[in-house]
Amino acid sequence: MARETDPALIAVDWGTSSLRLYLVAADGSILETREGAEGVMNVPAGDFAGTLTRWLAGWPADALPILMCGMVGSRQGWREVPYLDCPVAPADLGRALAAVESGTGRGIWIMPGLRCRDDAGVPDVMRGEEAQLLGALAGPDAGTEMDCCLPGTHSKHVRISAGRILSFSSHMTGEVFALLTRQGIIGRLMPDGLVSPDAEAFAAGIRRSAAPGGLLHQIFGARTLPLMEELSPPAIGDYLSGILIGHELRATRWHGEVRVMAGSELVARYVRAFEALRIPARAMPADLSARGLWLIARQAGILA
Amino acid sequence: MARETDPALIAVDWGTSSLRLYLVAADGSILETREGAEGVMNVPAGDFAGTLTRWLAGWPADALPILMCGMVGSRQGWREVPYLDCPVAPADLGRALAAVESGTGRGIWIMPGLRCRDDAGVPDVMRGEEAQLLGALAGPDAGTEMDCCLPGTHSKHVRISAGRILSFSSHMTGEVFALLTRQGIIGRLMPDGLVSPDAEAFAAGIRRSAAPGGLLHQIFGARTLPLMEELSPPAIGDYLSGILIGHELRATRWHGEVRVMAGSELVARYVRAFEALRIPARAMPADLSARGLWLIARQAGILA
Repeated sequence: MARETDPALIAVDWGTSSLRLYLVAADGSILETREGAEGVMNVPAGDFAGTLTRWLAGWPADALPILMCGMVGSRQGWREVPYLDCPVAPADLGRALAAVESGTGRGIWIMPGLRCRDDAGVPDVMRGEEAQLLGALAGPDAGTEMDCCLPGTHSKHVRISAGRILSFSSHMTGEVFALLTRQGIIGRLMPDGLVSPDAEAFAAGIRRSAAPGGLLHQIFGARTLPLMEELSPPAIGDYLSGILIGHELRATRWHGEVRVMAGSELVARYVRAFEALRIPARAMPADLSARGLWLIARQAGILA
Repeated sequence: MARETDPALIAVDWGTSSLRLYLVAADGSILETREGAEGVMNVPAGDFAGTLTRWLAGWPADALPILMCGMVGSRQGWREVPYLDCPVAPADLGRALAAVESGTGRGIWIMPGLRCRDDAGVPDVMRGEEAQLLGALAGPDAGTEMDCCLPGTHSKHVRISAGRILSFSSHMTGEVFALLTRQGIIGRLMPDGLVSPDAEAFAAGIRRSAAPGGLLHQIFGARTLPLMEELSPPAIGDYLSGILIGHELRATRWHGEVRVMAGSELVARYVRAFEALRIPARAMPADLSARGLWLIARQAGILA
């Protein structure tokens, strides 16, 4: 007879640049985790089925259902799954799973991403983060009214209301930071390799983000301050990061305590930024996406 | 006897990525112009003297004095010339020329760049643009109170008061645009090669820059709108450009009619952006830097 701790699902968060797999038990606990850089952009010859099979090797998983989220459901992924329009309740996602024809006879599904529009009608999208949100919504201390922040290359600010994902906005903070420091003129003054975090420079950047002159002006300070020897080269990255994250977080109107989603080394940085802005915030547990996918699988009746 | 139209000066604007030389007559008129990509970053083996000699080949210039401005006076240039602190009058610049030891016996000078500090004490710098400002200050319709905008990779907003350069701010608009479109995810949706300008997309970007959500959020629309087929791929660049330039220009408090300095294909774009923001602005004539360098050379008594 099947036990609560037997494997019952393989949950997969398959993003643009990375892949994370969870072997999940019938009771939702995570038994094993695998992670690598074979994101959607790096799948050899678009062979998603073969790539997935390699990653599953050795897991007692031949007959287990697989539920995936992330860019694997985009046009560049395995199968394009249309976005669901906000507001979206967990049950809506459970009803909208798209089956993948894998030729193996096993059940493989992709969960849709979300779309919303702001007051001006400009669309915004997410693929993958919704699994974490579902996990957070089911947590022991979840409210039906919550603001969430998901740091990342394109970080997301999410408003949850009446237990549904009401709206969200994306912010290109991580990408702009990477471009400025790796390819731009600011990066030329920065030392190669890892440097120690500089909390004071980060805090100075956050303060700077409130000054007049605008973001495009303020980031020029990450060039002129080192030029005048008023900021040390190892501190440039933290100063710039403070300016960008400060702008990002100030641009949203937050309600109550913000839940900062984990799964990235950026979480502690974001929690500190919220503190500096006197906005209550706390870090959420890691691996909420496995929890969210398990909940949806159970709801959709596809658990083993 | 020397005539007013005889060559009297070689004026050189030697920037990071390009080099522009003017053969200037005694009366300040431009006789000939040369231009190329041998900017400070591209000078072979740091051989500034040899590079300059090659560029002067064939000009009746053996004995003419040379006055340069731009990054040639930076740490990475021919000779580092300390910045002058604002406010700066034209006469201050004339007194601060730095002689270059060229070994040729001819007179070669570099004009210093400018530095200022904002209310928070953060420094800002320019090297090269000050020559254009001097040219504008000496124009027939110059005021002693003027706001100037110099579009570029790091565009400058300059306040001129009582005939002096009072303060300025730099904005990384051009660099951020180049990074986002050449290296970033937005660029992946853009067609290769030149596209026709799309005035409506540019205007939509400027309007968008006034919406809530902040710059880091708004630029994500340059990804989601094409994804939803609500913006055509050839229009992405103009839409993004409108958002960035809109943010740049809104961040400064302008007084009266803004003079937009020429010398870049961006001028018409900036004048249109000012119009969209209902800020009076007009384009200035090109080659004002040659005029400014000639004025300073005359003042310093180094004209042939």
